[in-house]
Amino acid sequence: MNRTQLVNLIKQKQSLLCVGLDSDIDKLPACVMDTEDPVFEFNRAIIDATLPFAVAYKPNLAFYESNGVKGMVSLQKTMAYLNNLKTQCFTIADAKRGDIGNTSQQYARAYLSPEGDFNFDAMTVAPYMGSDSVKPFAVYPDKWVVLLALTSNKGAMDFQFIKNESGLRLFEEVILKSQQWAENLMFVAGATQASLFRDIRKAAPNHFLLVPGVGAQGGSIDEVCDNGLTNDYGLLINSSRNIIFADNTADFARVAAAKAEEMCSQTQKYF
Amino acid sequence: MNRTQLVNLIKQKQSLLCVGLDSDIDKLPACVMDTEDPVFEFNRAIIDATLPFAVAYKPNLAFYESNGVKGMVSLQKTMAYLNNLKTQCFTIADAKRGDIGNTSQQYARAYLSPEGDFNFDAMTVAPYMGSDSVKPFAVYPDKWVVLLALTSNKGAMDFQFIKNESGLRLFEEVILKSQQWAENLMFVAGATQASLFRDIRKAAPNHFLLVPGVGAQGGSIDEVCDNGLTNDYGLLINSSRNIIFADNTADFARVAAAKAEEMCSQTQKYF
Repeated sequence: MNRTQLVNLIKQKQSLLCVGLDSDIDKLPACVMDTEDPVFEFNRAIIDATLPFAVAYKPNLAFYESNGVKGMVSLQKTMAYLNNLKTQCFTIADAKRGDIGNTSQQYARAYLSPEGDFNFDAMTVAPYMGSDSVKPFAVYPDKWVVLLALTSNKGAMDFQFIKNESGLRLFEEVILKSQQWAENLMFVAGATQASLFRDIRKAAPNHFLLVPGVGAQGGSIDEVCDNGLTNDYGLLINSSRNIIFADNTADFARVAAAKAEEMCSQTQKYF
Repeated sequence: MNRTQLVNLIKQKQSLLCVGLDSDIDKLPACVMDTEDPVFEFNRAIIDATLPFAVAYKPNLAFYESNGVKGMVSLQKTMAYLNNLKTQCFTIADAKRGDIGNTSQQYARAYLSPEGDFNFDAMTVAPYMGSDSVKPFAVYPDKWVVLLALTSNKGAMDFQFIKNESGLRLFEEVILKSQQWAENLMFVAGATQASLFRDIRKAAPNHFLLVPGVGAQGGSIDEVCDNGLTNDYGLLINSSRNIIFADNTADFARVAAAKAEEMCSQTQKYF
């Protein structure tokens, strides 16, 4: 999906919402547990219910890999289902991969290649290993690298604020340097760091930001929008647990949809 | 496997060699391609042939994930095979994962849990997201976190040398800080950076270092050993392509063994 298509989708749905499919098998409602593939059945119900309100879905791969081969089958089925809805949502593999060039190329093939088992529109990538670890993800047309810049967790303080000799913090250095490496680039910027969104916008005035950290982690949607919105929106605001695990009865999908609608309504004033 | 067991294995085999199972399906010899699972058949033959010379095996997960669900089945079979040899080798998931706490926990469960499909002894972890992204990998007894410090690729120059206000470079900061987070810790230090091994040893005098970058990437084994060896060795020197793809005829396993033996002989003088 290219940028124009993504922006049109946002306008059409009047939504910036990305639903995180962190479908932890230990937290699924009992009603899906006796199906053949509980994680897939859960995801399908969540997707069907939230599709009017979500512009993007972001399976976090850890929750699939932790179920081993079975988990990867659930992910494959989930992506086949989402890819059938192709023009109705954008898909992000939350993978945080990154390795030497020939290896990053394999990760890109795994999750972005249209011939692969998954065929995501985008994937998250970690910047620690630098240029040749990031570039191989940026070779698929209309696919996106979502590079970690300023993350939403407490550990973000450990390294991401280290200042180089010109006074730039590591997250700013990542945002600035990486723009020389790839065109189809977005950045992860945690909602818990929303006061720094103005600094991020100085370094990346137009790039889309994927914003985790609202809800369970405590970030504010208003602060994110006030400091992060661009002329064509430029934000995908993620919520995972707050939506998908809002209820764990047989009514879970309806409650998830209500939560998604509520999150949408919080950004309604910007449309 | 605990540290004493690993050191004993190194002494017994008189080897520091880790064989990287970067088993790219596009590079496998024709003779395995008509088997049901070419990647697993290839790995099994490589393991059988190189076991006398290798103390560790390191499948790089990218080369399995790039084959989708099938690839994860090959990885599962490979690990079942290696785990049957348990006391004869140490196993490392080259995964370079790292995410917020609850997610890193899932990645750890995926690859380190004895109840999981893979049950590795160790896995590589990326430090960018800091403490809470690293700690959840360090909770399994006798299992190891191998944290990226100074990598072997060109992109290592982009961020890993940024100096903080006290003059420490990012890779040193990673090595020093992370020691407060976890006991069972090793570090990735690229052989292409061997001149910096003295600085690494100042920050981590006793930790094991996993050293990629000899062979295809150009690092020198002598320089690595001269600057990196400790009283109980403290080094696992990885070679992937140079061993496993040394030959692509039906004779590939024998040639791989010869290459592995040759690498062993290069460190013989340190025993």
